[in-house]
Amino acid sequence: MIIVLRHGATERDILLIEEKIKSHGLSAHISRGTERTIIGAIGDERHVDPEAFEGLDYVEKVLRILKPYKLVSRDFKKEDTVITVRGQRIGGGAVALFAGPCSVEGREMMVGIGGMVASAGANFLRGGAFKPRTSPYAFQGLGEEGLRYLAEARDATGLPVATELMDPRDIDLMAKYADIIQIGARNMQNFRLLTEVGKLGKPVILKRGLSATIVEWLMSAEYIASEGNQEIILCERGIRTYEPATRNTFDVSAIPVVKALSHLPVIADPSHAAGKVSLVEPLSAAAIAAGTDGLMIEVHHEPEKALSDGPQSLRPEAFREMVSRLAKIAVAVGKTLGRA
Amino acid sequence: MIIVLRHGATERDILLIEEKIKSHGLSAHISRGTERTIIGAIGDERHVDPEAFEGLDYVEKVLRILKPYKLVSRDFKKEDTVITVRGQRIGGGAVALFAGPCSVEGREMMVGIGGMVASAGANFLRGGAFKPRTSPYAFQGLGEEGLRYLAEARDATGLPVATELMDPRDIDLMAKYADIIQIGARNMQNFRLLTEVGKLGKPVILKRGLSATIVEWLMSAEYIASEGNQEIILCERGIRTYEPATRNTFDVSAIPVVKALSHLPVIADPSHAAGKVSLVEPLSAAAIAAGTDGLMIEVHHEPEKALSDGPQSLRPEAFREMVSRLAKIAVAVGKTLGRA
Amino acid sequence: MIIVLRHGATERDILLIEEKIKSHGLSAHISRGTERTIIGAIGDERHVDPEAFEGLDYVEKVLRILKPYKLVSRDFKKEDTVITVRGQRIGGGAVALFAGPCSVEGREMMVGIGGMVASAGANFLRGGAFKPRTSPYAFQGLGEEGLRYLAEARDATGLPVATELMDPRDIDLMAKYADIIQIGARNMQNFRLLTEVGKLGKPVILKRGLSATIVEWLMSAEYIASEGNQEIILCERGIRTYEPATRNTFDVSAIPVVKALSHLPVIADPSHAAGKVSLVEPLSAAAIAAGTDGLMIEVHHEPEKALSDGPQSLRPEAFREMVSRLAKIAVAVGKTLGRA
Amino acid sequence: MIIVLRHGATERDILLIEEKIKSHGLSAHISRGTERTIIGAIGDERHVDPEAFEGLDYVEKVLRILKPYKLVSRDFKKEDTVITVRGQRIGGGAVALFAGPCSVEGREMMVGIGGMVASAGANFLRGGAFKPRTSPYAFQGLGEEGLRYLAEARDATGLPVATELMDPRDIDLMAKYADIIQIGARNMQNFRLLTEVGKLGKPVILKRGLSATIVEWLMSAEYIASEGNQEIILCERGIRTYEPATRNTFDVSAIPVVKALSHLPVIADPSHAAGKVSLVEPLSAAAIAAGTDGLMIEVHHEPEKALSDGPQSLRPEAFREMVSRLAKIAVAVGKTLGRA
Repeated sequence: MIIVLRHGATERDILLIEEKIKSHGLSAHISRGTERTIIGAIGDERHVDPEAFEGLDYVEKVLRILKPYKLVSRDFKKEDTVITVRGQRIGGGAVALFAGPCSVEGREMMVGIGGMVASAGANFLRGGAFKPRTSPYAFQGLGEEGLRYLAEARDATGLPVATELMDPRDIDLMAKYADIIQIGARNMQNFRLLTEVGKLGKPVILKRGLSATIVEWLMSAEYIASEGNQEIILCERGIRTYEPATRNTFDVSAIPVVKALSHLPVIADPSHAAGKVSLVEPLSAAAIAAGTDGLMIEVHHEPEKALSDGPQSLRPEAFREMVSRLAKIAVAVGKTLGRA
Repeated sequence: MIIVLRHGATERDILLIEEKIKSHGLSAHISRGTERTIIGAIGDERHVDPEAFEGLDYVEKVLRILKPYKLVSRDFKKEDTVITVRGQRIGGGAVALFAGPCSVEGREMMVGIGGMVASAGANFLRGGAFKPRTSPYAFQGLGEEGLRYLAEARDATGLPVATELMDPRDIDLMAKYADIIQIGARNMQNFRLLTEVGKLGKPVILKRGLSATIVEWLMSAEYIASEGNQEIILCERGIRTYEPATRNTFDVSAIPVVKALSHLPVIADPSHAAGKVSLVEPLSAAAIAAGTDGLMIEVHHEPEKALSDGPQSLRPEAFREMVSRLAKIAVAVGKTLGRA
Repeated sequence: MIIVLRHGATERDILLIEEKIKSHGLSAHISRGTERTIIGAIGDERHVDPEAFEGLDYVEKVLRILKPYKLVSRDFKKEDTVITVRGQRIGGGAVALFAGPCSVEGREMMVGIGGMVASAGANFLRGGAFKPRTSPYAFQGLGEEGLRYLAEARDATGLPVATELMDPRDIDLMAKYADIIQIGARNMQNFRLLTEVGKLGKPVILKRGLSATIVEWLMSAEYIASEGNQEIILCERGIRTYEPATRNTFDVSAIPVVKALSHLPVIADPSHAAGKVSLVEPLSAAAIAAGTDGLMIEVHHEPEKALSDGPQSLRPEAFREMVSRLAKIAVAVGKTLGRA
Repeated sequence: MIIVLRHGATERDILLIEEKIKSHGLSAHISRGTERTIIGAIGDERHVDPEAFEGLDYVEKVLRILKPYKLVSRDFKKEDTVITVRGQRIGGGAVALFAGPCSVEGREMMVGIGGMVASAGANFLRGGAFKPRTSPYAFQGLGEEGLRYLAEARDATGLPVATELMDPRDIDLMAKYADIIQIGARNMQNFRLLTEVGKLGKPVILKRGLSATIVEWLMSAEYIASEGNQEIILCERGIRTYEPATRNTFDVSAIPVVKALSHLPVIADPSHAAGKVSLVEPLSAAAIAAGTDGLMIEVHHEPEKALSDGPQSLRPEAFREMVSRLAKIAVAVGKTLGRA
């Protein structure tokens, strides 16, 4: 860690910094320039928060040298992590295709959509039983009943299912029904939840927080990994910006940036990013071209009638057509899409 | 709710929208202009998510007419909510002064700082026993032990204590030790936690999420209120922007904006907003001038040695001097600060 | 335009709004609901700024019904605008390939790079003679000398050249040397410059401002179009967000969003968006997959030695290889890339 | 400048960086750690753009040690710059009060409002003759005619006048009529305009760009200063964020941050920041409490009828009352407001 002091910092200031560095078990290397004094904190800086220095009055800036995350970094593990669930892969040259409704609304609905997306090429099913809703008055999901229908859809199609966990008290339900556990954007820094899914040992989809930096996102993955679970799938779902034309701004650059920093697979959720059905295909295409390891697509058989899900859902037939067009882009970048 | 259709929307599109409106229990009023058709959805739109319409391909935009929150709105209750805890008030002409360390680090430390800030004019104590940390390798707080020290500081000073809750499974500990429960910025949309503190019935400080809009923040307050708990204190703590000079951008406008929209008290946390001790006083002063109902200030007796807290902490003597200067600004706007 | 009044707005407030609407030549339609009064302003709202109403105390919100731009909108002109310059096309099924150095540094350099990118498939040359630099102490470009070298590179390759205009006083130089005039991101709302290039009548590349909304960007295009020049090429180059991993966040969604709203071609500048050479290819690929009409790529023969340009430049051989890979993606979406 | 190389950077990479550093006239100091190689670039780094290194593939990050601006920095000049125009001061313990209409609409209007704000305590007049408007169809200002009326208002009141310059070709008009020249937010990086006002030698109000960082803002001030003009008044006017409740987010922290970094005076424009008349007073109060050297307030005698200005304008009587309340806050921080 490199600490740049303000112009005019005194010897006492330097001494205090030095002590603080030593109290963290690091050693200090002081370099007095003509305009600024620079102090290097040498040793394992991973457990030291730059904020411990940044707020001090005589400190101008602090630069971390090492990355604050370790287990999830490319430095720690060179090869791509490939996750296999019930025979379906995420990572390693295939673009995984997660599809299904936003919320599980009923047995027939879930099993029906499951069958349709499976036949259109999806190799993972998705559907929410616990729904994080901005309004307390909105539909909050079917709960365990929804998980049961999801499991039935898995039995009917043979495809693994992914569903969201919102509360550490629901971890046993997840253990019972889910193949892959999703942590939603609003819970990306719900550290207790991260610890629990780290302990459970099932693969986890970790969505990027609404305004999380890539480093914060990887730090949340590190929480899961530090409990012994390295089967983490990062999911880019758009970030909050000033632009009102889309619900969120899909940060397509995050895909190659994360793949350079981490060995974990990265998938994309264009449905939530855009909030508009017309944007699902161009963003899916962009994600594949930029190197995504998977797509998560909302599909509903009657988007107009669905009370509880977003109108960014595609109809099954539109999904099928889109998949066949996207498959060509996957081929152009040397990959396959879904159940190739 | 007003729904503007795209140029070229067909009669079938209009019919589908109409059905969807009716399925939500509202009635539709259609107005065909020369360039656009506009549909009004009339009735209680509170339970209807504009996103249910926004993503549809033939919809151009949607305008909500009524506010999506009710119980926390100024429309619902005209007079300011004033909260009294152990004889100390938040709201109603007094600027409440919450002070204490970021983390509870030990018994002497907590009781000692508690006594110092009380004598300097603070009328509420703060201190974290459960700490949400970006890194799994950082100090996570003393847990129940910390809560006990906090309670001892309360006993010693007579001041009510506020502390953060991170996990619904810790609600009983909160019931036992805390006077006021804080929901941190990262948990503003942890809806399960909001529901639990709504049920508990102790006053709640609800921090604004890192990139929450004011409407989302009020919706999270509505979650708490909808469980029957209206003793909610909103806390502005800076929002995420592109500007790197401060840790967050303190949104001082949020204070008057929220006070116009809601009857709830609003306090400010300049320590976390700025991340720099030198900015704590100017931002505190700005918050008072803009109408805040309280301040939350981090105070530590040895900021340089504190491993576990931010260097945005003031020393007790600096805190005392700041309070005496800020009190003049409170007087200039017709209020009192802390233990007047 | 629809104006929603606050709860409690008086008859006098309604009357004042009505008068204000009439003073803009529109008529007012008042609808008194149980909770809110809503006023419709009927007529050509294009010349009325919603801000003229938004700031009024008794107004809660204002919704524009019609788009504020006209000439550049898809409503005004259904078919895609295709621009042809010296036989090379932008729009209409071909992905135009603009390539060249950030700054023109000398005759040999410009002619040399021009020849290399032309042979690698570029069909437009780019190079800056006037450089907008954040620092007054940085290299500001060669000025007219640079324009001459650019013209020589055009003569040598036969390819049209695009270069940036920064000052209305340089318009005659542009008329003399440039085939396409670029308006940089920092000048997107330099309205005098927009008016001048509107009058000149040469094709214009209009870069999106650093934090411009898509509507503001189209309004700046409308400035140019309103002077009679419809040959406008919109260029997405990344927007400012809180994320520090990339210089800007490349808003790939802007491509399909703009193509839905406007008939103008949209190109992408991944070099400036990312600021990292390693991101140029994935972002270029994403842009093609999302429907871009062109790419603008910085190429330099010695990026390490170049003082005056960004290290996001590709070497000519890397550019050539990238073009051959990107061409496959273009084919997968039914298009051709560069000099097909 | 400190350059951190990626894990795995080769000796050849190090050599290339070293050469690049030397080509900028600096010397390189290489430090090979176990995990990362760090290179210090020693010497006057002010003319070196960190981007010249950041985009290189084997570079992980770059930290600038010295500030990129010099003449406007507090390091260069310790004491506050105080600017005096026609006997009225900006900086040095007084809060200057600029008031007047957004646009000059006519002679009587301008002279009338001028007289009213002067009698209410303003000590500078403001009014736009050239208006940067998002729409080409909106009122663009009266031009020279407006400048003449502004000069008449100055003659009538004795107060200096500030007005906006949009085009370098209008510099002679400014020389003739204006006392203080304003550079608007949209032109903060119109470097040609900055150079021209730097040469003219009249005091300049430099508004912060819509999404400018504080460093970029100071770099634009450096452009003016580097031409020999140090009479620069920085003006915070809100920045662009994701929050829709206010037109812009007023960055009150910018006031103390800039005053720590620079010797230049900083004023605040709460009218444009908020876009709501009800927010003008709380934001003005916040700015005074945070240490502003001045306020810029829009005043209009008939805000409802004004076609060409924002409804964030106060009526003269409301302005007068606000000034008397704000004066108390100025006193509480040891300052005076306007014509004390």
